[in-house]
Amino acid sequence: MIIFACFYLERIESKSEMKKYNFNAGPAILPRQVIESSSAAVKDLNNSGLSLIEISHRSSDFQAILDEAVALTRELLNVPENYSVLFCHGGASLQFCMIPYNLTRKENPPAYLETGVWAKKAIKEARLFSEVEVVASSADDNFNHIPTGYSVPENASYFHVTSNNTIYGTQMHTTPETTVPLVVDMSSDIFSRPVDLSKHALIYAGTQKNLGTAGVTMVIIKNDILGNVDREIPSMLNYQTHIDNGSMFNTPSVFAIYTALQTLKWLKSLGGLEAVQKQNEDKAKILYDEIDTNPLFSGTAKEEDRSLMNITFVMEDKELEQKFLEEANSNNFIGIKGHRLVGGFRASIYNAMPKESIEALVSLMQEFANKNN
Amino acid sequence: MIIFACFYLERIESKSEMKKYNFNAGPAILPRQVIESSSAAVKDLNNSGLSLIEISHRSSDFQAILDEAVALTRELLNVPENYSVLFCHGGASLQFCMIPYNLTRKENPPAYLETGVWAKKAIKEARLFSEVEVVASSADDNFNHIPTGYSVPENASYFHVTSNNTIYGTQMHTTPETTVPLVVDMSSDIFSRPVDLSKHALIYAGTQKNLGTAGVTMVIIKNDILGNVDREIPSMLNYQTHIDNGSMFNTPSVFAIYTALQTLKWLKSLGGLEAVQKQNEDKAKILYDEIDTNPLFSGTAKEEDRSLMNITFVMEDKELEQKFLEEANSNNFIGIKGHRLVGGFRASIYNAMPKESIEALVSLMQEFANKNN
Repeated sequence: MIIFACFYLERIESKSEMKKYNFNAGPAILPRQVIESSSAAVKDLNNSGLSLIEISHRSSDFQAILDEAVALTRELLNVPENYSVLFCHGGASLQFCMIPYNLTRKENPPAYLETGVWAKKAIKEARLFSEVEVVASSADDNFNHIPTGYSVPENASYFHVTSNNTIYGTQMHTTPETTVPLVVDMSSDIFSRPVDLSKHALIYAGTQKNLGTAGVTMVIIKNDILGNVDREIPSMLNYQTHIDNGSMFNTPSVFAIYTALQTLKWLKSLGGLEAVQKQNEDKAKILYDEIDTNPLFSGTAKEEDRSLMNITFVMEDKELEQKFLEEANSNNFIGIKGHRLVGGFRASIYNAMPKESIEALVSLMQEFANKNN
Repeated sequence: MIIFACFYLERIESKSEMKKYNFNAGPAILPRQVIESSSAAVKDLNNSGLSLIEISHRSSDFQAILDEAVALTRELLNVPENYSVLFCHGGASLQFCMIPYNLTRKENPPAYLETGVWAKKAIKEARLFSEVEVVASSADDNFNHIPTGYSVPENASYFHVTSNNTIYGTQMHTTPETTVPLVVDMSSDIFSRPVDLSKHALIYAGTQKNLGTAGVTMVIIKNDILGNVDREIPSMLNYQTHIDNGSMFNTPSVFAIYTALQTLKWLKSLGGLEAVQKQNEDKAKILYDEIDTNPLFSGTAKEEDRSLMNITFVMEDKELEQKFLEEANSNNFIGIKGHRLVGGFRASIYNAMPKESIEALVSLMQEFANKNN
């Protein structure tokens, strides 16, 4: 058995030398230690003789996992006392209806900023509950920037924005100033930088980009924004249910929460979110510098709104684009193809993306330009 | 590295010799091969050099996983062509509101059979949408049986029952005859026996008992029962959304679906659901026979409604109950304590529970009786 195990391990090792550059937009690259520890816990949790996925969610073992995940979130994001940290089911898409369900007062239509496909989806669901005030949109420019100069009605139930637009490679680099409760979809940039939560009423994020695996959604909510609507809310869609039950109203996504915890530990080991932000700025600069100097490539997002998470770029010559894509694929670059709504290329460089992989992409772009310019 | 790996493996091995008898009610015991293959895929999916949890859900690798899980479900449950097999978010608890959202016509109140806590929760959510006709309840007998002799209004939008009541150890052994669409919560007995789907309009089940890990809910739905209500349904709560998008409207619970697929493969390897049912009957008989002959123990569920999944039993002497519980705990029996609403003991013996573990419990009960009678 042991001899066989050694042989097996050796095989895995040699396999993993076939380096993959994972630029997927989400689910996306995760830190190797998160993958290793999650895999190990599925096999045997803490040397208990039981798998993570066969213990009771009411066990002290799982409660400790959930508690630590909440505590680390509070620490890393400096979450104020009067906010709750929740792990909900359903992905960010379920939040699109939970938010108006819990917050929309019909006589005070909520305000939305339209910055891309996901913002549009959020608006669509909000319209089932009331009128919606779209305060600004960059749709006419294929969402290549974050609109400015809009004003939010003072009586809006809330103001909803998407902080990072995965498809279009844009990101809000300042928090909107508003007097109404600010609700932010941070699905693709949560934990990539510090957030001043006191300026926010609710932030939420699917976990499959910067926080682990798909199957759970983090919601951080200011407790006192609830209880101001008179519609009846199904229990599972009511934030108060999940606050009252510590995210355990029903069986939570045990594995996804465990993976989130491993990611949070890793973030802490990097030195917290200031350090993570610095890394992300440095990493993004490497690729943006290449895009700006390489004669074959150009960025699609307006410079001041460029995302540090998803970098979108195109070539003028569509045949060359296809050639570069094939070149990237054959060199083990994964997920480089741009979304069909933007075309060209997209490099998603979330927290876990190593600098070396970005440098490898830059080298490929330089070699390609040398050969094809 | 290899020497260290061998040492590590040896340590795991000797650890796993501390046999645990996992009688948890859910999340619950899973087949060892499901745990091993799920753990391995998190480390490296199909020798791809990537983890299961960092690939795109739009990749051909994941599509193949989802397609095979749907195909195996169709095969094992003999799902008719005109039904859809969905993997939804949110657990069975979200179904409690999705069902009335999609099916309740206000003028035709749905009918519910009240057989325990989970049925009551389903009824509570349904009442947010219309009146509800509770056709029968065994509440006065602490839900120790499945009511009979009720009639379902012919104009009901649907009739909802819970096929297995985890807490009370009762199970419906025949499918209710009704002319209205039959909706069944099978969370704790799906895939434990064949189901005649043609008698059902919709069945659903959280996956954390007989189908893998928490984080996804299987829904099998007759396509033509949809589209008959005039309320607007949020996209994520609309079954049609998930049918139209093949369970990929938003990022699905990748890991939970993979684990479900491994469980479905294992079920097929056992010979399908007729064989599984036979095993379950044989396994349950071993424990029920002991309960019925051991002078210290007695079953709580009415004999004809006894569950093959959750076996509930008590002792007359509450001090002895405590003593037996300690005895079980110190012998590595896990999850044996009964739910507080029933007291005593509960042995959850889902598909993956080996006969040997039930025999070990029976031995413990016999030894205990010899010492304490």
